[in-house]
Amino acid sequence: MTAKLQLNSDGKIKHFLSIEGFSRAILTEILDAAESYSEMATISSKKVPLLRGKTISNLFFENSTRTRTTFELAATRLSADVLNINISTSATSKGESLLDTIRNLEAMHIDMFVVRHALSGAAQFIAENCAPNISVINAGDGRHAHPTQAMLDMFTIRQHKKKFAGLVVAIVGDILHSRVARSQIQALNILGVNEVRVIAPKTLLPVNVEKLGVVPYQDMQQGLEGVDVVMMLRLQRERMNSALLPSENEYFKCFGLTQEKLKFARPDAIVMHPGPINRGIEIESSVADGEQSVILQQVSNGVAIRMAIMALAMQSGG
Amino acid sequence: MTAKLQLNSDGKIKHFLSIEGFSRAILTEILDAAESYSEMATISSKKVPLLRGKTISNLFFENSTRTRTTFELAATRLSADVLNINISTSATSKGESLLDTIRNLEAMHIDMFVVRHALSGAAQFIAENCAPNISVINAGDGRHAHPTQAMLDMFTIRQHKKKFAGLVVAIVGDILHSRVARSQIQALNILGVNEVRVIAPKTLLPVNVEKLGVVPYQDMQQGLEGVDVVMMLRLQRERMNSALLPSENEYFKCFGLTQEKLKFARPDAIVMHPGPINRGIEIESSVADGEQSVILQQVSNGVAIRMAIMALAMQSGG
Amino acid sequence: MTAKLQLNSDGKIKHFLSIEGFSRAILTEILDAAESYSEMATISSKKVPLLRGKTISNLFFENSTRTRTTFELAATRLSADVLNINISTSATSKGESLLDTIRNLEAMHIDMFVVRHALSGAAQFIAENCAPNISVINAGDGRHAHPTQAMLDMFTIRQHKKKFAGLVVAIVGDILHSRVARSQIQALNILGVNEVRVIAPKTLLPVNVEKLGVVPYQDMQQGLEGVDVVMMLRLQRERMNSALLPSENEYFKCFGLTQEKLKFARPDAIVMHPGPINRGIEIESSVADGEQSVILQQVSNGVAIRMAIMALAMQSGG
Repeated sequence: MTAKLQLNSDGKIKHFLSIEGFSRAILTEILDAAESYSEMATISSKKVPLLRGKTISNLFFENSTRTRTTFELAATRLSADVLNINISTSATSKGESLLDTIRNLEAMHIDMFVVRHALSGAAQFIAENCAPNISVINAGDGRHAHPTQAMLDMFTIRQHKKKFAGLVVAIVGDILHSRVARSQIQALNILGVNEVRVIAPKTLLPVNVEKLGVVPYQDMQQGLEGVDVVMMLRLQRERMNSALLPSENEYFKCFGLTQEKLKFARPDAIVMHPGPINRGIEIESSVADGEQSVILQQVSNGVAIRMAIMALAMQSGG
Repeated sequence: MTAKLQLNSDGKIKHFLSIEGFSRAILTEILDAAESYSEMATISSKKVPLLRGKTISNLFFENSTRTRTTFELAATRLSADVLNINISTSATSKGESLLDTIRNLEAMHIDMFVVRHALSGAAQFIAENCAPNISVINAGDGRHAHPTQAMLDMFTIRQHKKKFAGLVVAIVGDILHSRVARSQIQALNILGVNEVRVIAPKTLLPVNVEKLGVVPYQDMQQGLEGVDVVMMLRLQRERMNSALLPSENEYFKCFGLTQEKLKFARPDAIVMHPGPINRGIEIESSVADGEQSVILQQVSNGVAIRMAIMALAMQSGG
Repeated sequence: MTAKLQLNSDGKIKHFLSIEGFSRAILTEILDAAESYSEMATISSKKVPLLRGKTISNLFFENSTRTRTTFELAATRLSADVLNINISTSATSKGESLLDTIRNLEAMHIDMFVVRHALSGAAQFIAENCAPNISVINAGDGRHAHPTQAMLDMFTIRQHKKKFAGLVVAIVGDILHSRVARSQIQALNILGVNEVRVIAPKTLLPVNVEKLGVVPYQDMQQGLEGVDVVMMLRLQRERMNSALLPSENEYFKCFGLTQEKLKFARPDAIVMHPGPINRGIEIESSVADGEQSVILQQVSNGVAIRMAIMALAMQSGG
């Protein structure tokens, strides 16, 4: 259902809510578009007039300076006008419903909503209920999806590995609670990597995780063997108190990525992390800053991929 | 006195502080200008370069995301630069006086202040004390006035009823505390409707309310009979505790606009509300979302009318 | 070391961290550039396309609406895109280090950081550690420096006194804790005034203050005699509780600038203050608003000088 919702009648991207349901062709079209924006970032003027006169509203129900910043930069560099709306301080505190807030913003002729929400399905709910000329981008909803993060990760992998076929990719950390991991797994499988592994303590793996199209490991040595790409997840430290996890030290000892453990992977493996990193908890500083790390390239690519997705969604028309 | 302050020596709009004192010709000029901005909103690029190079400062001493947002959009679509200043977190907390804050912003060559303040007369005070080249727009001051809200309401009425002559309009709710109602009553009378009625419990009607140019009613059936336009006010729920009002249920029963009560009005009556609406308190959801409701058109018109007022005030020169 | 860091290999301004180490020629180049921006502010369109396509990030670790506002206006009038980042609510609260924050913003292709921080040396630390194509402007760091404030003061002095040679300048107030005073003293000496005096109670003067190139006074009558420029400092009222100062009344009696005390200075002396002013504490209202006061011109000049510094730093290339 999401799949249909995300495409217009010509099969073009209308909303970007979840990786699920997009074809390999569509994901590849996004990666190709991001390529040109990525090159543009290094020249003197980083702006194109593509979305001049359009208004993009960042609807952040959950605070995230970093993600909001990359979306704001992406929109600004496409010459759109950006309206940041921090919902906790806005009308909803006067008792207005989400739907009323959306109706009001629609009436102000907003062209696109970038939605971040603590509840899974929030972006889809807005896409299902907003005016037909508006596009919705999911900037992270609950435990469900963070599809633009997954796409910038795919872009970074393609930059370094050229193609997806044949790759073995390991995702390490709290798979159970991670919207990033869910979107990454879907994207990797659609783009046709050879194998997706997840490495985590049993308490942080979903039941029947194999059904997502992954091979689970509970041991770093076995899981990292022969791997081309190591994707670390950020450890939500609040889980520590919830009996799902032992101490930080214990976690780092077993699942923290150290130079030593990284040797289990292929010598040309790249190390990724969605940030912000917890140094010494899920990743050793020398690995985060090391030669195999592409973490800061992910950040750069985050702006380019969001420009690509915004531009494609806006060009699909109403 | 406000009247003189609001016009320049050529009789053009200089400040927009209160409906009071403006002529029918001036209000009509604003409505006509808003017409073209309203049409523009639906085309691809919503921007005109009219105020390019101008700086407009939103001086919000009272939080209002919705009103600030429409002013910000209006300014941006006129290509002005917008400076949002949340006064509670700014210099005044360092003990600086309002006048010093204004002097400093003047010195930064701000061209227009959009002022929201909990005290009646704040916008006028600023207009009286600021540099002669600056225009001031009142975005709501205490219980005094909310003139841009009234103008967007007039615009919406004209869209649907074509002319003001002959109309019977009822304003329902807390007339006593409402700056919106005061500005609406003035605008309706200047534009020459046939009759303005106010419907409220006695405790929420000003003493000698007739002097404002209205006919008071304390009963919905009598008050709505033959009415062309029903303008609901937002109920400030904090009044509930102040002995001015019975319970919410009791209020809704007597003064809440239901489909049943709406039948007392003319069959082609339109229903308006300044938002955000309290569903089930002052208005039934099926009425707010019903065929006679023009509430969301009011929001759209809010951007157009503010573009018109800003543009006219800036064109009157220093 | 700062001196070298601030200039590129062609001797052009790269970073603007501290007055210290800049030559008279460089400071004069800034003042000359600000002259044209100052004239521009009064014409209809205040914008130049000089930094179009550039992204400037206001990194404010310490809140200051006024300073942030002038930098935002300066950047906007140079047509740059501005990204305001309030650090207390951002990633550092998720435990990210300053260096990781900088690395991330670099990766987003920010061209310039405007840094305000409660710790001395913060801006320099960022300049030393950021990518070579980025310029850093110090908008106030701890007790160390506030060099753009000092430059707008120099600009204001030159406006009124035409040249620096021969001038006697007195700085009055809490010299010990003032980053503004430190930067002013350096700028005045580099630009070649005849004499810089500091007037303060002993507890608010640094030990061996003469080494800074000033003559210390503890008495207003003696200190102001023959002075061309009186530069008042803002009194940090929190010092009152710290045993460094007697009561506010006592302070005002001895060191507050009154019309009476101002008569000790030359009759054409100008009175300056970085704002926001504490009326009746360090300065009498009639002096702040009087004929000799140039306080609001300082504010206007603050935008022009920041435009000049930003433009020069960005033109020096990577």
